[in-house]
Amino acid sequence: MDMDNEVLRAIRERRSIRKYRPEQIKDEELQAVLEAGTWAPSGMGYQNSYICAVQDKETCDKIRRLNGEVLGNPEADPYYGAPTIILVFSKSDWHNTVKDGSLVLGTMLLAASTIGLGGCWINRCEEVFASEGGKALLGKLKVPEGYEAVGSMSLGYPASPARAPRPRKEDYFRVIK
Amino acid sequence: MDMDNEVLRAIRERRSIRKYRPEQIKDEELQAVLEAGTWAPSGMGYQNSYICAVQDKETCDKIRRLNGEVLGNPEADPYYGAPTIILVFSKSDWHNTVKDGSLVLGTMLLAASTIGLGGCWINRCEEVFASEGGKALLGKLKVPEGYEAVGSMSLGYPASPARAPRPRKEDYFRVIK
Repeated sequence: MDMDNEVLRAIRERRSIRKYRPEQIKDEELQAVLEAGTWAPSGMGYQNSYICAVQDKETCDKIRRLNGEVLGNPEADPYYGAPTIILVFSKSDWHNTVKDGSLVLGTMLLAASTIGLGGCWINRCEEVFASEGGKALLGKLKVPEGYEAVGSMSLGYPASPARAPRPRKEDYFRVIK
Repeated sequence: MDMDNEVLRAIRERRSIRKYRPEQIKDEELQAVLEAGTWAPSGMGYQNSYICAVQDKETCDKIRRLNGEVLGNPEADPYYGAPTIILVFSKSDWHNTVKDGSLVLGTMLLAASTIGLGGCWINRCEEVFASEGGKALLGKLKVPEGYEAVGSMSLGYPASPARAPRPRKEDYFRVIK
């Protein structure tokens, strides 16, 4: 069995991308990323998450601003100018809300990097969708009743090569035999 | 750009494995899984997780029992007889504890499936390591001070083919253009 396959390499080589080209990604690229997200493991296999990709400029700009407000700087764009923003919501009344949503995001980040796209996990979505401005967006985003925001990602074509990775820390893992 | 590459296929084809052969996996297989885990995205790139693989039978059996106790059935083996148990801990005083730990586990589950191993996310670790029996294990597992359990996984050679996946739910994702 190959101990260094395409998938292990992709896992090692994925980087967070914080600078994007302005043009929108292709529909089939977005679909590949979203479909990958649906195959993330989920607690009991219940698929208790909902993924919403936003490409409409007005809505994207609102999300950028709301997220910046949580940062204390509404003019900042925490999505680094990425033309697509993907939000992940998971069922609230469920013991795996954050775990399930995180796996969906992690899976999409990896998938994106393997088809030439860049992505970066963006936090503060809980606060964004607890705010009045965020709540007003839930209908437009078609978020199902009883779901809450777990996180989000920026998505687009990388504008510059990613930074070299930091070395992995010492004693990241141990084996007890 | 290929919209159906090895990684996208691996993501779609990974299944949770709930039946294992008794023999231990090879060291290089375990190392490949653990190393993959260290490359999971982490908040701010801070690598605030710690991964502990347990193969020592006595310790594994203790963990099985403690986890079963949380279930209300100490004789149950929630790890399905898997010869390796991997635990993930993340820094407590940190806004991304559960998210970071989840991404480490998700990455290892995917990595394992690509080298012929089976894995399954196993919950209840928060309760296990809040119990007296769990606390007594922290030293042996060399868990750094200030870290808490996020989750775990069973790992081994699959004893039988995985179930066919459930179809993905309708409206798992939407695109707002």
